[in-house]
Amino acid sequence: MKKKIVILPGDGIGKEVTACGKKILEQVAECFGHQFTFDYATIGHEAIEATGNPLPDESLEKMKNSDAILFGAVGHPKYDNDPSAKVRPEQGLLKMRKELGLYANLRPIKLFDELLAASSIKPEILKGADILFFRELTGDVYFGERGRKDQGSTAFDTMIYSRYEVERIAHKAFKAALTRGKKLTSVDKANVLESSRLWREVVQEVAKQYPDVTVEHMFVDAAAMKLIQNPRSFDVVVTGNLFGDILTDEASQIAGSMGMLASASIGDTVGLYEPIHGSAHDITGKGVANPLASILSAALLLDISFGLKEESETVIKAVEQTLKDGYRTRDIADAATPHEKILGTEVMGNVVC
Amino acid sequence: MKKKIVILPGDGIGKEVTACGKKILEQVAECFGHQFTFDYATIGHEAIEATGNPLPDESLEKMKNSDAILFGAVGHPKYDNDPSAKVRPEQGLLKMRKELGLYANLRPIKLFDELLAASSIKPEILKGADILFFRELTGDVYFGERGRKDQGSTAFDTMIYSRYEVERIAHKAFKAALTRGKKLTSVDKANVLESSRLWREVVQEVAKQYPDVTVEHMFVDAAAMKLIQNPRSFDVVVTGNLFGDILTDEASQIAGSMGMLASASIGDTVGLYEPIHGSAHDITGKGVANPLASILSAALLLDISFGLKEESETVIKAVEQTLKDGYRTRDIADAATPHEKILGTEVMGNVVC
Ligand SMILES: CC(C)[C@H](C(=O)O)[C@@H](O)C(=O)O
Ligand SMILES: CC(C)[C@H](C(=O)O)[C@@H](O)C(=O)O
Repeated sequence: MKKKIVILPGDGIGKEVTACGKKILEQVAECFGHQFTFDYATIGHEAIEATGNPLPDESLEKMKNSDAILFGAVGHPKYDNDPSAKVRPEQGLLKMRKELGLYANLRPIKLFDELLAASSIKPEILKGADILFFRELTGDVYFGERGRKDQGSTAFDTMIYSRYEVERIAHKAFKAALTRGKKLTSVDKANVLESSRLWREVVQEVAKQYPDVTVEHMFVDAAAMKLIQNPRSFDVVVTGNLFGDILTDEASQIAGSMGMLASASIGDTVGLYEPIHGSAHDITGKGVANPLASILSAALLLDISFGLKEESETVIKAVEQTLKDGYRTRDIADAATPHEKILGTEVMGNVVC
Repeated sequence: MKKKIVILPGDGIGKEVTACGKKILEQVAECFGHQFTFDYATIGHEAIEATGNPLPDESLEKMKNSDAILFGAVGHPKYDNDPSAKVRPEQGLLKMRKELGLYANLRPIKLFDELLAASSIKPEILKGADILFFRELTGDVYFGERGRKDQGSTAFDTMIYSRYEVERIAHKAFKAALTRGKKLTSVDKANVLESSRLWREVVQEVAKQYPDVTVEHMFVDAAAMKLIQNPRSFDVVVTGNLFGDILTDEASQIAGSMGMLASASIGDTVGLYEPIHGSAHDITGKGVANPLASILSAALLLDISFGLKEESETVIKAVEQTLKDGYRTRDIADAATPHEKILGTEVMGNVVC
């Protein structure tokens, strides 16, 4: 199989972890006789520094002409602490999602048995938890109108959803539920928000086409609680952009560490794969970041964009074996387990390869 | 001391638990020689059924003329599953918060040592966690303009904050931080939202008046994760209405159960005290609801609205002793602890009294 992959390292630890993700893709190409060619593109703080633009047209063109994208992270503390900054790394990310039509963000939350001890949640609560999140990615308060009024003393953002946006992600989530535990939880705040009432209305309608799936509607506050109280009670979860952002980061604790979680953003054309962790500037350049989320993102890429199931599973098994052999990065280490070997980013990546 | 208290049972388990909260107030009045008079008012589904209005003027008048309010909960599944309902119980709650100017919702999250085992989070992660949330309660997407467009196929809500709204709650949170661990975490989503950028700007400004408090700004997704990963790293948390709704429900898991958490809503005039749990229709009328959140709400009422510190502490100690003696309601029971005695709502309330 011949494929073109764009690597988009971005900011912070993005570079370090995508280097490992790329290496695993090269390894897979070699072992399974595929031809993957790689190209690089810039985004985020790095792109602002070089061009003034958080998503240069050239990057977007490269991505549109590729078969899949492996992305790192964007963000920089410089902007975070300056509420008046006009250009921000995150604008590049949001523009990319919108321009590439990446409306469905899939975030599988699954705990490797070896990491049961690494989570702050009790093993008996976690064991067997396996959740697939569908976070809507191109709508909601991320893309509604925003601004200031009253000489800047009032600020607003608009949460907004249209029927077709809810429909298309609902269909994707229901279809996924059919291949899994046949249960779908739709999360909203319909007791307060009009956009959530539309969300619920549409999910109820779409549900009629999937009589085999049990549907449950849950308020976001209750969902935030139940995820920790009883993670096993969830199968597929579908929710809007903002609630999805919050709940999936929270759910990372079910998987032991944010450093373990991969995500796939898909839509009408090319797919994008990224860790759910961010740029993590506090550990950037130290070589301690966990590369497994990027490696697992590469596994999702092989499966979803290229249909290479065997290759994808081989990568996941390699990660599993690495954990079984006692190799850990700092974030997933458990002081109480003496046989563990703590590795840096690159070596951990090499062990998996 | 002579005081007028309005009891607002509301819907679902609201009646059962406020009955226990009231009983404890009566007990306190008797033991400490105070004169508390009680009046009842209606709100929510119950009020809709009786008058068509989720917050009748008569209720509002009674509350305005009282010294403190003990509230239960509102909500009914009938409306939740009908996105097109025009009148909803929650409207009564929101109107009450707005009309009474209850802009600061205090939610103390503290684990009773006896309940260490009841949480799904590991005891070694929880032990010593003690967080005080300040949730803004009369702004944000709860009160911004909302509606439909394009023949109903698009729905929107407006997240909106003004400078003075952020200032007044920030001051309350900073002042509380001074009396505690001197650390304040402000939670927003300033990398995306304009209302969050205003929020951050104002908190940064107010911070200058409290040089002894260490301030940290955190994105809501990161906060949702860190609350579980390392709850002890938080002291006072201040955040907007929506993020506060989600994070405090999540944080209930730190306290073992939502059934343990009390809250105080304060502003310019009368204070309102309520459990953070909702109407819980699944257990309504079964007599199994945990009354401790309502009892602890009564303790907050005595302390904050009446300045009766000793009385308030006596109530908290009674709760502690009840737990030490092994009495539990279902939600905080731990199957692994054989000496526990599982009680219903009323008996549990009586034991505390
Ligand atoms: C960086 C930020 C804008 C982004 C988001 O909120 O979507 C991130 O948190 C994510 O989840 O991908
Ligand atoms: C019932 C609902 C409107 C309310 C809210 O979202 O504020 C509740 O969840 C709460 O936290 O008091």
